[in-house]
Amino acid sequence: MNSKLLDLVKKRSTTRIFDSREVNSEDLLYCIRVAIQAPSGANRQPWRFLIIDDPLLRKELREKCEEQEKIFHENVNAELKEWFRSKQIMWHKPHLTSAPSLLAIFSDQNMVYATESTWLAIGYILIVIEEKSLSTVTYTPPHPKGLRELFGSPENFRLETILPIGYSADPKQKEERQSTEKLIYRNRWRELNV
Amino acid sequence: MNSKLLDLVKKRSTTRIFDSREVNSEDLLYCIRVAIQAPSGANRQPWRFLIIDDPLLRKELREKCEEQEKIFHENVNAELKEWFRSKQIMWHKPHLTSAPSLLAIFSDQNMVYATESTWLAIGYILIVIEEKSLSTVTYTPPHPKGLRELFGSPENFRLETILPIGYSADPKQKEERQSTEKLIYRNRWRELNV
Repeated sequence: MNSKLLDLVKKRSTTRIFDSREVNSEDLLYCIRVAIQAPSGANRQPWRFLIIDDPLLRKELREKCEEQEKIFHENVNAELKEWFRSKQIMWHKPHLTSAPSLLAIFSDQNMVYATESTWLAIGYILIVIEEKSLSTVTYTPPHPKGLRELFGSPENFRLETILPIGYSADPKQKEERQSTEKLIYRNRWRELNV
Repeated sequence: MNSKLLDLVKKRSTTRIFDSREVNSEDLLYCIRVAIQAPSGANRQPWRFLIIDDPLLRKELREKCEEQEKIFHENVNAELKEWFRSKQIMWHKPHLTSAPSLLAIFSDQNMVYATESTWLAIGYILIVIEEKSLSTVTYTPPHPKGLRELFGSPENFRLETILPIGYSADPKQKEERQSTEKLIYRNRWRELNV
């Protein structure tokens, strides 16, 4: 690649507000094609991708998620409650109905390292979404099992994330990152930072 | 990016045999810099990176992992046993001592979505390793807790993977991927494939 991957991932930031432009279905397919090139435990490829474009289903999904979120936000610990407050993140999940595209990603829990492998593929998909100048947020419903009926998904498939995808209209900046010095050790834990 | 991400990830394949060329420490640092640009649950950045270059530590690590692997391979189910056999994957883990670099990645389990976020960052790091023309395998020891003493890592940090990194001398081809048609559904599970 001529331009560096570091530039692309630095540019990427989480987006909860999208403009009205549709996502080209070829672009969405391209993103999934990149994701499934990820390696997986024993090459089991435990991932499934559910494109949700039925407006009624999206309305129901949002309602169910927001019910769950209300309970979650009431019971969250003080530190996280403060973080949500500071970021103005509430139980409302308008992006579930307003984002141009919605992509749910599941993992087959009967496979080895299903969750790990699927999040690895989600890492791939976040980068390719940015390559396509699209944006997303890795939304994780508090109780994914409670959504199974909506999708008709089998018990062994865990809903890992729902990605609202579109062109960003979100004014928020990328969250700050810790410096690598604090995150890298050599040989022994914290013994000698690089 | 001028060349496509799809080409890069298609080219990438898991590598267990490396040639003798050293990995530039700046390249390794660049890879970690890319990884920590990944998003994480509530921006908690639960990841830690441990560079293992002490030969004695690597020898001990390999011994401990191989002990675990012997037991694991004896007890694995028939399907996986057959898969390992077909791929000639055994309990031996020579790459733990022979790979030019070794990078262990941990997640802080006190943070929300620690494992998910860390595997997302591992997805990032696999792509940047390929960008640098380097190769790796996402090696997961069967009993990561049994290695804690070696690293002096605290209880709340889970060892997610150990990445042997170097230039590939592995003749193995990339594992085949299922077609996207089998992996993508629309609105309802398997109701209508795209």
